[in-house]
Amino acid sequence: MNRQQLVEQIRKKQTCLCIGLDPDMERLPSVLSQGEEHPVLAFHRAIIQATAPYCVAYKLNTAFYEVLGSTGWQLLEQTLELIPDTHFKIADAKRGDVEHTARQYARAFFESLGFDAVTVSPLLGKDSVQPFLDYTDKWTILLGLTSNAGSQDFLQLPCGDGYLYERIMRQASGWASPNQLMFVVGATWPSQLQQLRQQFPDHFFLVPGIGAQGGDLQAILESGQAQSDAGLLINVSRAILYASTGNDFATAAAEKAAQYAREMAGFLQGRK
Amino acid sequence: MNRQQLVEQIRKKQTCLCIGLDPDMERLPSVLSQGEEHPVLAFHRAIIQATAPYCVAYKLNTAFYEVLGSTGWQLLEQTLELIPDTHFKIADAKRGDVEHTARQYARAFFESLGFDAVTVSPLLGKDSVQPFLDYTDKWTILLGLTSNAGSQDFLQLPCGDGYLYERIMRQASGWASPNQLMFVVGATWPSQLQQLRQQFPDHFFLVPGIGAQGGDLQAILESGQAQSDAGLLINVSRAILYASTGNDFATAAAEKAAQYAREMAGFLQGRK
Repeated sequence: MNRQQLVEQIRKKQTCLCIGLDPDMERLPSVLSQGEEHPVLAFHRAIIQATAPYCVAYKLNTAFYEVLGSTGWQLLEQTLELIPDTHFKIADAKRGDVEHTARQYARAFFESLGFDAVTVSPLLGKDSVQPFLDYTDKWTILLGLTSNAGSQDFLQLPCGDGYLYERIMRQASGWASPNQLMFVVGATWPSQLQQLRQQFPDHFFLVPGIGAQGGDLQAILESGQAQSDAGLLINVSRAILYASTGNDFATAAAEKAAQYAREMAGFLQGRK
Repeated sequence: MNRQQLVEQIRKKQTCLCIGLDPDMERLPSVLSQGEEHPVLAFHRAIIQATAPYCVAYKLNTAFYEVLGSTGWQLLEQTLELIPDTHFKIADAKRGDVEHTARQYARAFFESLGFDAVTVSPLLGKDSVQPFLDYTDKWTILLGLTSNAGSQDFLQLPCGDGYLYERIMRQASGWASPNQLMFVVGATWPSQLQQLRQQFPDHFFLVPGIGAQGGDLQAILESGQAQSDAGLLINVSRAILYASTGNDFATAAAEKAAQYAREMAGFLQGRK
């Protein structure tokens, strides 16, 4: 899915909500354990069906699948097939390795699995990111400023004439166009996000940290939109997935997603 | 496997060779394609049997399994079962994510899969590494200075009173003891490795970059050993795995591994 198509979905639905499909076995609704198919798959089927009208993207965090072993990797493949073509598909994998290895990761996520986008760590430098960028019809989502407190340990260190995360983003923005390169910027750092938007007016930001991590949605929408279009994918995982763990889990997830979508609509109105 | 047991293996075998099991479908010996089991598994079975006497560790690079989809993840599990208990098992996964996610990765590699060690990216800071360190009977192998040219983009940036990689290693060395924390230091930066050894006399270094990447084994052995014991795991992947792609691939791999082991023996002699 290219930028125009993604922006068109955002405009049409008036939402830039991305839903994180991070299956936590300990929090799955108990009603699902009796079914014929794997409870995670039944869960995702119901969640996707209920929430698809309120979001434009789904993000699958590989950790939550890998913890289930090879079954988990199967569930990752099967979950991906449940997502309609109208929705942007993100592998939240944060891979980062030397070129020869990175090429295998890029193939895994873009070719074998068919994701639209994958999150990538910039730590190892350009040659470790290039194999992802070589897929010019796919998206590389580079870690900029992550939402966790630990981002202060290294990413927020002064490095030359700015912080390390700024240096990384500035350098990386020269590696590819904003039509195939996004940045992760955590909602938990609203003033930094505002400054980053001024420095990078054209890039899409994938914004985690709303919901369970406490980021302020309104602040992000006010200051985070790009110059020419929304330029935001705002991710919510747990607050939607586990809105209820009773039999009404899907309805509860849809209501929560609709609530986020409504909040976004006000801010996105009138945008191209 | 704890430090004492690992050092005992190194002492006994007079080698600190680690062999990377990175299955490249395009380079597998053609003789394996006719067998009953998956060619990757047959390949690893033969390679492990042939090389086990000459190495103390095997390192599985997850990228080369993930590119094969859920079958690949199964092969990862099955390959792990082929490795004898006498050998140290490393997941070269370079995972790095926020705490809540990192906890799932740690469970995946230490519990579900049962690796002794996993490589971890420090970029997201202490809270992203802590879930791995919480397994005090396992090893966290943190990226220090990676072997690729791209490490010059960010890891080798001046940051405060040193380079970023030094800053990371110094800070991280306070997070856990050298009995559960190693660093990745590339063989392609011999003078930096020598300096790092002086700054970190007690930590094990996992050293990639020998073989296909051109690092100098002798230089590493001369300057890289720890104060109290070898403190080195030197990884070779392609140069051993694909020493021959003919019917003699296992013998050729064993010969190549034995050759590396012999070079190491001279330097390790007399070490505890």
